[in-house]
Amino acid sequence: MPTFPFSAIVGQDEMRQALLIAAVDPSVGGVLVFGDRGTGKSTAIRALAALLPPMRAVAGCPYNCDPDSPAASCPHCAEGGPRKSHKTPVPVVDLPLGATEDRVVGTLDLERALGAGVKAFEPGLLARANRGFLYIDEVNLLEDHLVDLLLDVAASGVNTVEREGLSLRHPARFVLVGSGNPEEGELRPQLLDRFGLACEVVTPKDIPTRIAVVRARDAYERDPEGFCAARARDEAAIRKRLLLARERLPSVTVPDAALERAARLCLTLGTDGLRGELTLMRTARALAALDGAGAVTDDHLRRIAPAALRHRLRRNPLDESGSTARVERALAEMFS
Amino acid sequence: MPTFPFSAIVGQDEMRQALLIAAVDPSVGGVLVFGDRGTGKSTAIRALAALLPPMRAVAGCPYNCDPDSPAASCPHCAEGGPRKSHKTPVPVVDLPLGATEDRVVGTLDLERALGAGVKAFEPGLLARANRGFLYIDEVNLLEDHLVDLLLDVAASGVNTVEREGLSLRHPARFVLVGSGNPEEGELRPQLLDRFGLACEVVTPKDIPTRIAVVRARDAYERDPEGFCAARARDEAAIRKRLLLARERLPSVTVPDAALERAARLCLTLGTDGLRGELTLMRTARALAALDGAGAVTDDHLRRIAPAALRHRLRRNPLDESGSTARVERALAEMFS
Amino acid sequence: MPTFPFSAIVGQDEMRQALLIAAVDPSVGGVLVFGDRGTGKSTAIRALAALLPPMRAVAGCPYNCDPDSPAASCPHCAEGGPRKSHKTPVPVVDLPLGATEDRVVGTLDLERALGAGVKAFEPGLLARANRGFLYIDEVNLLEDHLVDLLLDVAASGVNTVEREGLSLRHPARFVLVGSGNPEEGELRPQLLDRFGLACEVVTPKDIPTRIAVVRARDAYERDPEGFCAARARDEAAIRKRLLLARERLPSVTVPDAALERAARLCLTLGTDGLRGELTLMRTARALAALDGAGAVTDDHLRRIAPAALRHRLRRNPLDESGSTARVERALAEMFS
Amino acid sequence: MPTFPFSAIVGQDEMRQALLIAAVDPSVGGVLVFGDRGTGKSTAIRALAALLPPMRAVAGCPYNCDPDSPAASCPHCAEGGPRKSHKTPVPVVDLPLGATEDRVVGTLDLERALGAGVKAFEPGLLARANRGFLYIDEVNLLEDHLVDLLLDVAASGVNTVEREGLSLRHPARFVLVGSGNPEEGELRPQLLDRFGLACEVVTPKDIPTRIAVVRARDAYERDPEGFCAARARDEAAIRKRLLLARERLPSVTVPDAALERAARLCLTLGTDGLRGELTLMRTARALAALDGAGAVTDDHLRRIAPAALRHRLRRNPLDESGSTARVERALAEMFS
Amino acid sequence: MPTFPFSAIVGQDEMRQALLIAAVDPSVGGVLVFGDRGTGKSTAIRALAALLPPMRAVAGCPYNCDPDSPAASCPHCAEGGPRKSHKTPVPVVDLPLGATEDRVVGTLDLERALGAGVKAFEPGLLARANRGFLYIDEVNLLEDHLVDLLLDVAASGVNTVEREGLSLRHPARFVLVGSGNPEEGELRPQLLDRFGLACEVVTPKDIPTRIAVVRARDAYERDPEGFCAARARDEAAIRKRLLLARERLPSVTVPDAALERAARLCLTLGTDGLRGELTLMRTARALAALDGAGAVTDDHLRRIAPAALRHRLRRNPLDESGSTARVERALAEMFS
Amino acid sequence: MPTFPFSAIVGQDEMRQALLIAAVDPSVGGVLVFGDRGTGKSTAIRALAALLPPMRAVAGCPYNCDPDSPAASCPHCAEGGPRKSHKTPVPVVDLPLGATEDRVVGTLDLERALGAGVKAFEPGLLARANRGFLYIDEVNLLEDHLVDLLLDVAASGVNTVEREGLSLRHPARFVLVGSGNPEEGELRPQLLDRFGLACEVVTPKDIPTRIAVVRARDAYERDPEGFCAARARDEAAIRKRLLLARERLPSVTVPDAALERAARLCLTLGTDGLRGELTLMRTARALAALDGAGAVTDDHLRRIAPAALRHRLRRNPLDESGSTARVERALAEMFS
Repeated sequence: MPTFPFSAIVGQDEMRQALLIAAVDPSVGGVLVFGDRGTGKSTAIRALAALLPPMRAVAGCPYNCDPDSPAASCPHCAEGGPRKSHKTPVPVVDLPLGATEDRVVGTLDLERALGAGVKAFEPGLLARANRGFLYIDEVNLLEDHLVDLLLDVAASGVNTVEREGLSLRHPARFVLVGSGNPEEGELRPQLLDRFGLACEVVTPKDIPTRIAVVRARDAYERDPEGFCAARARDEAAIRKRLLLARERLPSVTVPDAALERAARLCLTLGTDGLRGELTLMRTARALAALDGAGAVTDDHLRRIAPAALRHRLRRNPLDESGSTARVERALAEMFS
Repeated sequence: MPTFPFSAIVGQDEMRQALLIAAVDPSVGGVLVFGDRGTGKSTAIRALAALLPPMRAVAGCPYNCDPDSPAASCPHCAEGGPRKSHKTPVPVVDLPLGATEDRVVGTLDLERALGAGVKAFEPGLLARANRGFLYIDEVNLLEDHLVDLLLDVAASGVNTVEREGLSLRHPARFVLVGSGNPEEGELRPQLLDRFGLACEVVTPKDIPTRIAVVRARDAYERDPEGFCAARARDEAAIRKRLLLARERLPSVTVPDAALERAARLCLTLGTDGLRGELTLMRTARALAALDGAGAVTDDHLRRIAPAALRHRLRRNPLDESGSTARVERALAEMFS
Repeated sequence: MPTFPFSAIVGQDEMRQALLIAAVDPSVGGVLVFGDRGTGKSTAIRALAALLPPMRAVAGCPYNCDPDSPAASCPHCAEGGPRKSHKTPVPVVDLPLGATEDRVVGTLDLERALGAGVKAFEPGLLARANRGFLYIDEVNLLEDHLVDLLLDVAASGVNTVEREGLSLRHPARFVLVGSGNPEEGELRPQLLDRFGLACEVVTPKDIPTRIAVVRARDAYERDPEGFCAARARDEAAIRKRLLLARERLPSVTVPDAALERAARLCLTLGTDGLRGELTLMRTARALAALDGAGAVTDDHLRRIAPAALRHRLRRNPLDESGSTARVERALAEMFS
Repeated sequence: MPTFPFSAIVGQDEMRQALLIAAVDPSVGGVLVFGDRGTGKSTAIRALAALLPPMRAVAGCPYNCDPDSPAASCPHCAEGGPRKSHKTPVPVVDLPLGATEDRVVGTLDLERALGAGVKAFEPGLLARANRGFLYIDEVNLLEDHLVDLLLDVAASGVNTVEREGLSLRHPARFVLVGSGNPEEGELRPQLLDRFGLACEVVTPKDIPTRIAVVRARDAYERDPEGFCAARARDEAAIRKRLLLARERLPSVTVPDAALERAARLCLTLGTDGLRGELTLMRTARALAALDGAGAVTDDHLRRIAPAALRHRLRRNPLDESGSTARVERALAEMFS
Repeated sequence: MPTFPFSAIVGQDEMRQALLIAAVDPSVGGVLVFGDRGTGKSTAIRALAALLPPMRAVAGCPYNCDPDSPAASCPHCAEGGPRKSHKTPVPVVDLPLGATEDRVVGTLDLERALGAGVKAFEPGLLARANRGFLYIDEVNLLEDHLVDLLLDVAASGVNTVEREGLSLRHPARFVLVGSGNPEEGELRPQLLDRFGLACEVVTPKDIPTRIAVVRARDAYERDPEGFCAARARDEAAIRKRLLLARERLPSVTVPDAALERAARLCLTLGTDGLRGELTLMRTARALAALDGAGAVTDDHLRRIAPAALRHRLRRNPLDESGSTARVERALAEMFS
Repeated sequence: MPTFPFSAIVGQDEMRQALLIAAVDPSVGGVLVFGDRGTGKSTAIRALAALLPPMRAVAGCPYNCDPDSPAASCPHCAEGGPRKSHKTPVPVVDLPLGATEDRVVGTLDLERALGAGVKAFEPGLLARANRGFLYIDEVNLLEDHLVDLLLDVAASGVNTVEREGLSLRHPARFVLVGSGNPEEGELRPQLLDRFGLACEVVTPKDIPTRIAVVRARDAYERDPEGFCAARARDEAAIRKRLLLARERLPSVTVPDAALERAARLCLTLGTDGLRGELTLMRTARALAALDGAGAVTDDHLRRIAPAALRHRLRRNPLDESGSTARVERALAEMFS
């Protein structure tokens, strides 16, 4: 059954923008999507991954290394020499509820241990997510230490395993997407701060949009192939825009004025550390690349600032309706 | 001992309607039945399954795949080629109290692991429930993560296993039926929302009905065969209605007006996300099919709306006697 | 050492009546005995079992199936064909404190698993209790899930095992007798409701009775054989009455008037569901059978109603001295 | 190093009387000793055991069965036939802190399971205590279920094992002696009631006694052999009195008047059940036997009543200084 | 690196006196040192052990038995016959944080169990500490049952193992030294009472002492060999005094007057049991031996009473600054 | 990818000074860095290690012993004799979140145990950190017993393993660096006191610094090689200063006047024990060595006192903004 097309998503502009930015520059950090259930979060992330062209990967590498620049930390590709490659879809890995830490991190390969008597590593979900997406539904229900671990790996792009007599590192560079409902448990501020972007999704309130969503969903489920065929052209357009942005990204500049505005904005809002500014700079640059611009402008900062900063304000930003408003007020004062 | 006949159930109309709808279109999601104990919930689900004609299944497939369209995710049927088939009753799987997660999800086949040294999968209860029913008594006493897992599988029709070095998927498309007593612990709103329909069952208050129930139960237990033989014709009539509805379902239409009413109803009641509307549309369509109608009408919406929405209202809908009343008030205003 | 004779029990009429009813018709459900310690609960259950004539059982069947009608669910007797049989006493199985769930339910036969490499089932206490009694002292100290499991099995007569890669069913039809002291922890109303009868035992307050009990106990312990021999005739009389009642049971009728009274009584008392009426009907019928009557009369209802209903009233019936009083008041009003 | 002699214990009359009674008639139930630490409780129980003459035991029987009347429940002696015997000291088994349930109850013999592939039983501390004493220091710190288990076994004289696929019974008839300090955690009334006798020990308050105790202890530790030799005659006298009492016990009578007084005393004090009277009757009989009397008199009842009843009064009898006083007041009124 | 010399410890007279007494007569029981961190507790115990002359031990005995009088409970030396011996330093065993009970008590020797199929015992820390010292830092953070176990073993000199199918005893006669900070969790009075002596250590308040300590520590760390060489003569003097005291101990007498004073002191202070007096008598005797005196005098009692009694007063003596003061007041009144 | 250069760190002077001091004299104890996230703590420690010249290590020694003076406790180098050596970078070991205690301490080598049947030790993270750095992010989230263990090892330079039947010691001399945020859980005072130095890091408040940090970070990430090349000279200068300080350290003197000031300062501030003074003396000496001075002066004391003492004040020094102020006030009064 083909995936629901990214271009057929109705509304939810902020979430779609955040996902595109993360696809252009995965180093901006994970994306946290919070809000009502049943608003298509899981659908959107799958749709984005399906939109991306298949990637070339080293044949036999459990981490799907890029044949042109295999990860330095890859135990499989470390020896060098020519490698065969094949094409494979961009992975989207779900963290299923109840997945155990050993399946996430990887574990001792029992079959080989018992059979051949060797201590081999059996890669886990982090390995499979390399170069793709890792999706966690209800991230706020996950244990803190697992969230922390996932954010560590997402930030460093390397999974360090110290378990069961195993001691190794392997590449695990992926975009972490977590969804959550702030009404049920919250993330610690420390964890929130480590997500690059945070978007709100809400149930649409106008009836035509609601009908459009329900109709689209029903049409897709009754005839997936026909539904997707009708949107092939829109999908191609988004794919092209995204690939061009990736190419353009290294040459986009960030003027000092923009950086100063970013710093002042963070100072005004009192965010801890400098992650706020770093994220603002990087996401604005990726947004400029998506726009085809050569430099970051005030407009880019304004458009991305709420998603880049709202989760870094003090006092449980998520459950105060005011956190987005505070970012926007600060923006309004600065750019007035 | 033959199963108690569906047609001999006295009263409990809403529960019987919900079970029939789920049997017509399993994609409407699980059915939650809450209310007093000793009101025949477990009996009804068994009775429904016994009513259904045996299904054809691929011989040797642990998931009972349909020989005409085996599940794409079936590890057993994936290779293709002709397959033998046999007839088997529609499964009703009970989740016994104290069943461990490994028996639910499936686990490593220890016998083969120790004997032949291979890492084979031993299917669990989810596998056995494929194409049938999974019944959980006192679902509110189950751990949240297990309920979540069951709802995930029921929604996707696929069981994703990531345990003990196993990593596989298999079909698990079933109707989840959970019963519970709201006086003992509650389900989180997040979980409630994922059930398609929610029915209330109550102890009948009039003495003739009570005597009828007790007499029927006693008559059945003293002479099961005779009791069932006397109801064979009624059973056949319900079976026929259900099978016709399944055939008719794809051609039943949902007019825009009906969809708008559904959306307005949900907006009025303030349900989160769009699951309320999606369920209303689908269950009204299945109800129309059971009625032999070609399109959904206001009458179908009215009849199914309480069961489709009452568990999606905010503030613990189950323990407020008012949740059903609120749905009905909204219906009354809309259709006045 | 011979068992203390049932006929030598001094006082405790309600408990003795309840046990006899359960012995006549095990389908009335378990018996809950609550009250002071040191009042001979454990002695009574053993005495009743010893009173029953030995039963014929299929030789080699770990579930002691009746050679004339082996259980359909018996894995041992399922193949059919002639079977040898032998006589064996009616089993009374104690659930020892600290017994683990695997010993209750049955478990993987480790010896055969390690030795012959096959996954065989080793029956547990539930298997051994088939066709007899299962006694739990201090049932209120047992974990809820274990009580629930025991009540499930007692109700269905079948033990469904889903553990350690085992998946089987075997007959387990027994009378569950639980004793408890309401001063120490309570049973959940849900569990209480599943016991058929509930009796109170209290320390006798008059000195001659007390001396009689102590003398009897001391006499028995100092010379068990002599003590039992002196009561052989009384024992035979009770045994005969019980066996006649079993024969007579299927032909005892329950007039509509009796059923209506039962329903009205339950309505007045506000019991949940219809278990109250079902139990009243069945236990009154068994009592009629013990009396040699052909039909249930008001007198039978009156005599059994307190034990059949007192534990089904709302608000912790056990620790309100008023629950028995409430049943009796309702009886008095109805039959006045 | 020889054991400290029973006859050299200074003071603590009630504890010594209780231990002697339990040695005369082990069926009176366990002895609970509570009070200050450092008052020689552990010493006294060891001293009593050392005082008893060695017992004859079946050679090779892990339960030390008496060759003249092996326990019916002994798996080792069950086959019958002539048996060799040997002499062995009366065992005193300590329940060391942190002993695991498997060592108490017995467990699967791993060595034989792994070596010979058979499922053999490895007896535990209960087996070793058969025909002797089991001593638990700080019984109030033990988990309730373990205390319950120990009391069950002590009462029945049989250890029923249902663990790890093992299912067997073996004799375990011993006197349970528990010590405790009521200032640290308490025993549940249910457990208290199951001990036959309860004694208080207190630090002596007069200086000469204190010096005597300290001198004796020091003298013993500096020259154990010399110290014991000096008391050999006193030890022999106590031993003789105890053995005579055992012989005389079956012929000691309990007049109805004594029994009536016992019942009235218990009624006055409001003890639950009839354990109070049973214990009073038995311990008074044992005391009469120690005195060389042919029948129980009021004097015997008076002397033993505090130890037999003080732990059966309602409302935490142990920590109310008043519980002993209440028994004595009731005695005074009755015998005035 | 040589151990810091005992003679170079600045201040902390009470702790040094207590350690010397325990070295003269280990039967006085463990030493508890409480007070500020960073005051050299661990250093002092190591220094004392290093001061003692190496001991002769049976070659190959895992318990280091004395070749002249091997422990009766030693499984290794039990067979008798001539034994080779060697010299070995007095052991100081640390209980490392997180040491598991099996490493403390000893455990099944897995290597031999798996290899040779025999159930051999692998001695633990208690075995290694035999004839030496066992040091526990932050004893108040240890679990109660482990402290209790250690005190039991220290008191009896024998380690009784009942675990994993093992059942054996071995000698474990050592001085237990526990340190703790009363600000973090407390020991139960029951445990406190089992320590022989309890000392307070405090940070010195005068500047010259503080500088002396810091200088000494720094000098030692920069040139351990030189530092120790300079104190060799002082060390030899203390060693000689200690060895002479051990020889003299059996002949030191305790006059009745001293014993009476000890008893009166304990009565005044209201200590439970007679451990207070026993400890006073024994430690005063050891102190007299260290002084070269032939009999215990009032002066010895006065000097040792605070350490012997302060932890036996009621109501958490440790955290009331008043406990030492109360002992001293009682001493002052008695000897005034 | 080359490490971010130490010399390119903007601001955070106190943290850099503390790390340099610990690198000059590892015996000063661990460094605790607390404050805002995203302030480059982890970057700084990696940068310092990369700055140090590679060290010579015994080939094959799992603890990287120095070939010129292998650790006395090294099981690998203990035999003596000539050894080959090689050069290896100074290790920085991260304690990854979720690392299990067995990986930290080391564990039984399962591969060799199962394969060759020998009980070999597999070194853990403590082994790998020998002669380098051990970094713990969010040390306040670690379990107390693990922090305690790490501090014990860091203090003694030896890892004592008592697990799984293993019993060995190996060198583990490293600088422990822990980071934490006092807003999330706190360290016990006992643990705080064991860290040598404690620094605060805060987000810079002036915009040019913020821009400088962000620019530097971005420049480094976009072109690591170029960025590092441009700072090679600065790095060399710091390396030289550090190596000279190490050489000079043994000859730096601490005048009595300085020691008296240190003692008076600690007395004024009321720190427990003498760790405060010892740390002040040692860190001031290391600072003097870094300055090229021959003796400790008041200036050295003043500069290092806040980091050496602020975490030793009573009442949760970390979360009172006043603890640093109190140290500074005391310094001001003393040196005024």
